[in-house]
Amino acid sequence: MRILVSNDDGISAPGIQALALALATEHEVTVVAPDRERSATGHALTLHKPLRVEKVNLGGNIKAAYAVNGTPSDCVKLANGPLMPEGIDAVFSGINRGPNLGTDVIYSGTVSAALEGTILGIPSVAFSLASFSDLGYEKAAEFAVEMARQLSDPAHKLPRKVLLNVNYPAISQEDVVGVRITRLGEQRYTDSFEVRTDPRGKTYYWLAGEVIALEEEPDTDVMAIRDNCISVTPIHYDMTFHPMRQDLEGWNIATRPVDRSRS
Amino acid sequence: MRILVSNDDGISAPGIQALALALATEHEVTVVAPDRERSATGHALTLHKPLRVEKVNLGGNIKAAYAVNGTPSDCVKLANGPLMPEGIDAVFSGINRGPNLGTDVIYSGTVSAALEGTILGIPSVAFSLASFSDLGYEKAAEFAVEMARQLSDPAHKLPRKVLLNVNYPAISQEDVVGVRITRLGEQRYTDSFEVRTDPRGKTYYWLAGEVIALEEEPDTDVMAIRDNCISVTPIHYDMTFHPMRQDLEGWNIATRPVDRSRS
Repeated sequence: MRILVSNDDGISAPGIQALALALATEHEVTVVAPDRERSATGHALTLHKPLRVEKVNLGGNIKAAYAVNGTPSDCVKLANGPLMPEGIDAVFSGINRGPNLGTDVIYSGTVSAALEGTILGIPSVAFSLASFSDLGYEKAAEFAVEMARQLSDPAHKLPRKVLLNVNYPAISQEDVVGVRITRLGEQRYTDSFEVRTDPRGKTYYWLAGEVIALEEEPDTDVMAIRDNCISVTPIHYDMTFHPMRQDLEGWNIATRPVDRSRS
Repeated sequence: MRILVSNDDGISAPGIQALALALATEHEVTVVAPDRERSATGHALTLHKPLRVEKVNLGGNIKAAYAVNGTPSDCVKLANGPLMPEGIDAVFSGINRGPNLGTDVIYSGTVSAALEGTILGIPSVAFSLASFSDLGYEKAAEFAVEMARQLSDPAHKLPRKVLLNVNYPAISQEDVVGVRITRLGEQRYTDSFEVRTDPRGKTYYWLAGEVIALEEEPDTDVMAIRDNCISVTPIHYDMTFHPMRQDLEGWNIATRPVDRSRS
């Protein structure tokens, strides 16, 4: 396959290098990634300034690598346009430094790159190492190669609008229990702000916040990682909450009558 | 209600001023919004620099207004923490300059502010005027006041993880057909890049892209706006795609056996 590799930790991060080098042993790999860390950028686009692209050398069997002064979504759009005119068979994003579990997914630039691939109609997978240490990328990358083999099987087509979010436990390989297919859990933070005063006497705020260890059902991604499993979650970008459409018909929100003719 | 008003066009945008002034006639309104335009920021957070908050005066009956050098999500988190310690009963985001339909929702800072409110457990609504002209904010704001009345009715509790995304058609009031309860449609763009050369001879890229008018089902938000209706879409942030979990169990992605014991 012709695989685009991207991330949000930046092109110099060890996670993307491990991922690209491993995939390049079996596939044609092009890397297009931010020139610096873009964590928690969500699904942002750069509309108001020019994007610059610089060719870099990542070694190994990698076909080409480009650093972009933009977001993960920018990188995937640039790859799908001018940088990979021959087309993209799959997008692999990561390997992120740290987990992307539950609500993390909404803020995650790693997931966002895979999401952009999905919007463009390309099978896409996001990979995260559930630890903030840099150990374990090689084993997670081996699993990514497994996933690539599965994705290249025509029987394993991802449905439209659907991508896979993978979290790999940061433990020694022999302690990995197995793969668990999961749903998104709750990964919540305390969201405290540190209030500080700058050298000129003005107040500023700095977002802190630690993970709250909530009780979780065993089939969530959060629990899979706690149970030393690799978590694979199918996610989709159609956020419509269908069960509520009926209820809303009963709200009195029409300055004119609710148009029921076609809904 | 104690209402937080935010947006992504910045605190000086006419849309947020119309929204805040209209809601302040019936509620206690605090505005916390970016100090400048933050369109297409997605659900980004500012982790790596300090946040500054400046008090501004928006007139009318507004209790307080703050400009923040951050993203819409930052603004809602700051409001929920140090800026509105008395608590928030509802988050109203907008009124955005331009539509947020279909896939737009994933990139939208306007939706992102409402999403952040929802994650924090606060009933939240995003409002957009489906036009890039500045006409029509007052009528859209009147509809927001209607929505606020409905939300303050205890019978109309939003389910957990669910927010409402409202798009108001930019047409004269007598041509508005009514309210349509919708699902997200497809709002796709051509995603072309303009390739240019700077004065020093280096290449840069600028994201262009125009809306592709795809065929749509009548119950989508995209079609509601085309049909001159106000669109109200319930959306949720649990992006798990449950129908695929079964299929994935059949993939051979286990270097160790798939852990089926608890899924």
